Amino acid sequence: MIAPLPLADFEEELRAVGRERYHDKHPFHILMHEGKLKKGQLQAWVLNRFYYQKSIPLKDAGLIARVDDIGLRRQWIGRILDHDGTKPGEGGIARWLRLAEGVGLDRGYVASCEGVLPATRFACDAYVHFVREKSLLEAVASSLTELFAPDLHKTRIDALLANYAFANEETLAYFRTRLVEAPKDVAFGLDYVLRHARTREEQQLCVSALIFKTDVLWAQLDALHHAYVSPGLIPPGAFVPREAS
Amino acid sequence: MIAPLPLADFEEELRAVGRERYHDKHPFHILMHEGKLKKGQLQAWVLNRFYYQKSIPLKDAGLIARVDDIGLRRQWIGRILDHDGTKPGEGGIARWLRLAEGVGLDRGYVASCEGVLPATRFACDAYVHFVREKSLLEAVASSLTELFAPDLHKTRIDALLANYAFANEETLAYFRTRLVEAPKDVAFGLDYVLRHARTREEQQLCVSALIFKTDVLWAQLDALHHAYVSPGLIPPGAFVPREAS
Repeated sequence: MIAPLPLADFEEELRAVGRERYHDKHPFHILMHEGKLKKGQLQAWVLNRFYYQKSIPLKDAGLIARVDDIGLRRQWIGRILDHDGTKPGEGGIARWLRLAEGVGLDRGYVASCEGVLPATRFACDAYVHFVREKSLLEAVASSLTELFAPDLHKTRIDALLANYAFANEETLAYFRTRLVEAPKDVAFGLDYVLRHARTREEQQLCVSALIFKTDVLWAQLDALHHAYVSPGLIPPGAFVPREAS
Repeated sequence: MIAPLPLADFEEELRAVGRERYHDKHPFHILMHEGKLKKGQLQAWVLNRFYYQKSIPLKDAGLIARVDDIGLRRQWIGRILDHDGTKPGEGGIARWLRLAEGVGLDRGYVASCEGVLPATRFACDAYVHFVREKSLLEAVASSLTELFAPDLHKTRIDALLANYAFANEETLAYFRTRLVEAPKDVAFGLDYVLRHARTREEQQLCVSALIFKTDVLWAQLDALHHAYVSPGLIPPGAFVPREAS
């Protein structure tokens, strides 16, 4: 049996996954942050990313549904409450719909998820299934992309405000709120993973789970890039932007 | 309640899905059939499509696992036997591995599924989950892309033989065999769907299931096209062709 890595080295191994594979390095995000995405391309991103937002509470409920430890359930349920809110108009999903309206999309169309790329559905559904089917430790580890999210959200808020007329504190409220929520969640998740991965094999499963999750995020941007940037092949049935401007 | 379509019209509705959305019309297949794919691009296709082949018996076992009707189980099990064979070296999966060796890939590498695009995994896994989770009728309906497969396989055999040195009866045995197997399977599946979709709503669920399946196939080619044709952005960790020739 191989000895487990010291915790600091294991944490560094997890952080290295982000440096190498997190979707902040994807060409689609680079275009967005340079203000080079056209309105229709931004709309496609907001529309597709809504399917991801919509999947997160299902993913988190799938995790809680497997947990005997009431303490872990009490902690994890905060994620669902953050996304769903406690009444209409509240929560991350409602904030995302305000962003959608801000970029000129019809709220009902976005909420229906018609026009979402099939590849977006497949990637997000894969995440939901992963969390239901893998070990609890791997399910928690797959959430650790939140280690890398605050930097991306900060960059995104500044870039959108600088480059796009629709961007203001109301339309960008989702990202502003996540700057507060994500660090709290990930501090718990990271501590859980560091404490519960007791063998080298378990540590490697956690790294693989985090790589899986970066693949889920990367594949969504690949599909957007292929359909709406280059070569611009929109698959049958998917959203077609009205304006090229 | 809306009356169900007459069977001939319902069958025509199913066939129309193929005409509009089957992946024979995808640019990646068009390049292949015109002999324009380079060796590394063909290798990427064979490698990724192996993951699909590997998923098919899991999908079919997932269907059988839900069936009380011994007659349906006896019929459907033929699909697993076709793919898995009854001893090493037999069956569709073994034939696909011979194709992989024919295009210059290492058999063990292909069988390991390392290097497969994450989007391929997500799409194929979505199919496996669909068949486990949706109604039995929808699960059967999702197999009806086989209505459209023989024409594609015939085109492909001729195109590969005409354009690629690796192509011969041994390496293309998978497709030749499917020309016999698929029509037998799909005759049963189509008859099942026509007889069991008794309401207009059930007919529409079958059409949606078939659209879902065409999305699964199309998304795999989109991912290949994006990574290996245009713009040629290979995601982290995926197969990198050795030679550009």
